[in-house]
Amino acid sequence: GVPVATRKPGDEGPAEQLRRRFRLHPAQVVVVGFMAAIAAGTLLLLLPGMTAPGRSTSFVDALFTAASAVTTTGLDSVGTATHWTFLGQLVIIVMTQLGGLGILVSAALVGVLLARRLSLRTRLNAAGEFRAEGFTDLRRLVRAVIGITLLIEAVVAALLFLRYVTHYGWGPGKAVWNAVFTSISAFTNLGFTLQSDSMMGFVGDPFVCLPVCAAVILGGLGFPVIVQLWKEWRHPLRWSMNTNLVIVGTILLLAGGWAYLTAVEWSNPGTLGPLDPATKVLAGFFASVMTRSAGFNTVDIAAMSSESWFAIDVLMFIGTGPASVGGGIRITTFLVLFFVMLAELRGEAQVNIFGKRLSRAVHRQAITVVLVAVAAVVGPTLLLLQITESSLDRILFEVISAFSTTGMSTGITPELPDSAKVVLVLLMLLGRVGPLTLGSALILRDRRILYEFPRERPVVG
Amino acid sequence: GVPVATRKPGDEGPAEQLRRRFRLHPAQVVVVGFMAAIAAGTLLLLLPGMTAPGRSTSFVDALFTAASAVTTTGLDSVGTATHWTFLGQLVIIVMTQLGGLGILVSAALVGVLLARRLSLRTRLNAAGEFRAEGFTDLRRLVRAVIGITLLIEAVVAALLFLRYVTHYGWGPGKAVWNAVFTSISAFTNLGFTLQSDSMMGFVGDPFVCLPVCAAVILGGLGFPVIVQLWKEWRHPLRWSMNTNLVIVGTILLLAGGWAYLTAVEWSNPGTLGPLDPATKVLAGFFASVMTRSAGFNTVDIAAMSSESWFAIDVLMFIGTGPASVGGGIRITTFLVLFFVMLAELRGEAQVNIFGKRLSRAVHRQAITVVLVAVAAVVGPTLLLLQITESSLDRILFEVISAFSTTGMSTGITPELPDSAKVVLVLLMLLGRVGPLTLGSALILRDRRILYEFPRERPVVG
Ligand SMILES: [K+]
Ligand SMILES: [K+]
Repeated sequence: GVPVATRKPGDEGPAEQLRRRFRLHPAQVVVVGFMAAIAAGTLLLLLPGMTAPGRSTSFVDALFTAASAVTTTGLDSVGTATHWTFLGQLVIIVMTQLGGLGILVSAALVGVLLARRLSLRTRLNAAGEFRAEGFTDLRRLVRAVIGITLLIEAVVAALLFLRYVTHYGWGPGKAVWNAVFTSISAFTNLGFTLQSDSMMGFVGDPFVCLPVCAAVILGGLGFPVIVQLWKEWRHPLRWSMNTNLVIVGTILLLAGGWAYLTAVEWSNPGTLGPLDPATKVLAGFFASVMTRSAGFNTVDIAAMSSESWFAIDVLMFIGTGPASVGGGIRITTFLVLFFVMLAELRGEAQVNIFGKRLSRAVHRQAITVVLVAVAAVVGPTLLLLQITESSLDRILFEVISAFSTTGMSTGITPELPDSAKVVLVLLMLLGRVGPLTLGSALILRDRRILYEFPRERPVVG
Repeated sequence: GVPVATRKPGDEGPAEQLRRRFRLHPAQVVVVGFMAAIAAGTLLLLLPGMTAPGRSTSFVDALFTAASAVTTTGLDSVGTATHWTFLGQLVIIVMTQLGGLGILVSAALVGVLLARRLSLRTRLNAAGEFRAEGFTDLRRLVRAVIGITLLIEAVVAALLFLRYVTHYGWGPGKAVWNAVFTSISAFTNLGFTLQSDSMMGFVGDPFVCLPVCAAVILGGLGFPVIVQLWKEWRHPLRWSMNTNLVIVGTILLLAGGWAYLTAVEWSNPGTLGPLDPATKVLAGFFASVMTRSAGFNTVDIAAMSSESWFAIDVLMFIGTGPASVGGGIRITTFLVLFFVMLAELRGEAQVNIFGKRLSRAVHRQAITVVLVAVAAVVGPTLLLLQITESSLDRILFEVISAFSTTGMSTGITPELPDSAKVVLVLLMLLGRVGPLTLGSALILRDRRILYEFPRERPVVG
């Protein structure tokens, strides 16, 4: 019953050819793609020459590392800095880059495919979203995603390289490798580093911290927002509701997390306590940015207070913008629900956001995303409470970190039993493809029911 | 702009007179009523003769106990069994009974007032809900609530009395007082007992446990369901969506909690471990029933495993039926969101529940109730993590227990600092009046906006 626009076969990209041959839903192509990438990465990491001398890699740890890299989560069960050889680290960062690009490209693909398959009115809306950004052709879209990604990563890597060479006196080889690795790891929101203490050595250095923060924030905005900002930064009035929500939400979450974490950790001797005030403020900002979904750290997360962990849980769960390298339920989902609540409490018939009316169908989508996300956190938390000896605060942190592909940890990852690691692998995969897959599956289905039941309203709350 | 039906002044009950005189919203009458009852209870409990010899009652503990009783939460900061004299216990159980009746009556009142103030179509629906139960007159409604309450309490008290006298050989005075106290405490979902170990002495006695369970379950169904069951138990096809949702949800939650808690605690030496299999199954059932919102216990909750605590958190958060003595977001809210998700995943245009179509306005109400509830749990949890030394699992349990007016505890209540007790008092009050007040405030406001913004759908999830 859904109208399909007539197109020439030459228009098809490889993903759409695959989908057509195996009669797969585009969202299923995405899932299969990620699983294949994780499988390939696992096998690569088990090859000789990947593991550092004197160490050995179990199958589960290889799987865990590959899943962590491809989904750009960055949870680390072995210690990336010392466990792998240079070759192993290269495999990890290439997997991450492919994973990150795969996320952005597949988001764009699914978006364009959707625009072709929807009912006329919806198609006009969706096409408008992309037209606003000046992209009507699939190939140009993919090229733009890759181009913008490489450009941002190159700029951040150059800034880091200069700082490493001029201030820390590193040799050019080490500086280039570290700058490139860190830059990719930041923009793809991976969060792996080549230092075993993450970024703790740079806690007071804004010339390292701020470029990394910028890359993380840009990566978390999501492709549609980045492209619109790129093309139309002079014309904020033309920005879509999606762009406005992501930008306002990002600013609010960053500011809130910055103020809360800085205040709570201010005199904690294990974290901000020993630092001077300017460094405390910088480290608080860095920690807040990393909850978006990157997972670097300049202070010891294991030493943070329990209330900081819980606050970070909330921030990670909300996550980043849609069609981004980040995770969580998405800033838009959270804000949509918030504006629905606001309209309801004000008794307004429609939900209006920044001078535009919210489509009613989005209410149901947002409810669905949140319920699935809650189930994805509650279920594995109950499981991990049972199969490990850790406490609720650490397990909830680990589970939300995996689901939101953030990759921060209170330090329990290496000690987890294999069964718990497998649960986290599934959670990372679900967190990465879940909301996207779900979202597209939701939009694609458009079955009509021709009869109507009598309407009724039960009492809620 | 809301139409008000013409009525004779003689129709007005005292609550409506109060509302009219002070220009209060009916929901505000409810809030003021509960606050006044808590204030009066606090003063009463501070009078001489209430506290047992050799003990003293601080202002905060009196406030906490009064709030706990009036909201029928049952959190206990002093030890009801030993801290109070007989007179003190009498004050507590009378406060509970009034609080419990107040909840049921005010729910009915607000419901009837709403039915008079809504737009025609909505009014017909709401009136239908009450008409189905055979009540069109306010005074008959209130009388029915009180009558059914006293009848159920009398039957349960009689069963308990017989068991106490015949099996335990208690004297008639002790048996009557204990049976009446327990019965009221069960049906109003309070959860206070006259034994300092709650119901642990009766862990293997189905003749005590099952009547208590029955009273708790009936109390948690909510008044509209009880009345409809009473009048139309032979005609399930006439039951409203509300009744169907509450009954199906209660059965599912009871069965799920029973299976999970029994399995997880089966060999825990601190809880079910030492018991014989039949007693384990009974105690598992009892624990599951008490999560509805009663808070009695026959096994030591403090000794339960962390995963049981977290599972109980989830069950308490969902809570009971609307317009009941229980709490939480309500079973209906949870199931409505679940059915919305199901319809969305199936790609259905409408949300159909048990052969009836769900009103779209309910989506927004459910979102609102859940967001407020989440905020009411997350905020105080962050606060209590800061002002106490307890761990997340215990604090989350305590906060959800207070918000859902369940009153189970891992044992930290008496050791909490005064500031934390005040936070819990506010949470109990919010949990008791919140969803109800909110719900009615939502339905009463019906402002129309005469212009429309262009529609847009952001990407969620
Ligand atoms: K990450
Ligand atoms: K209770």
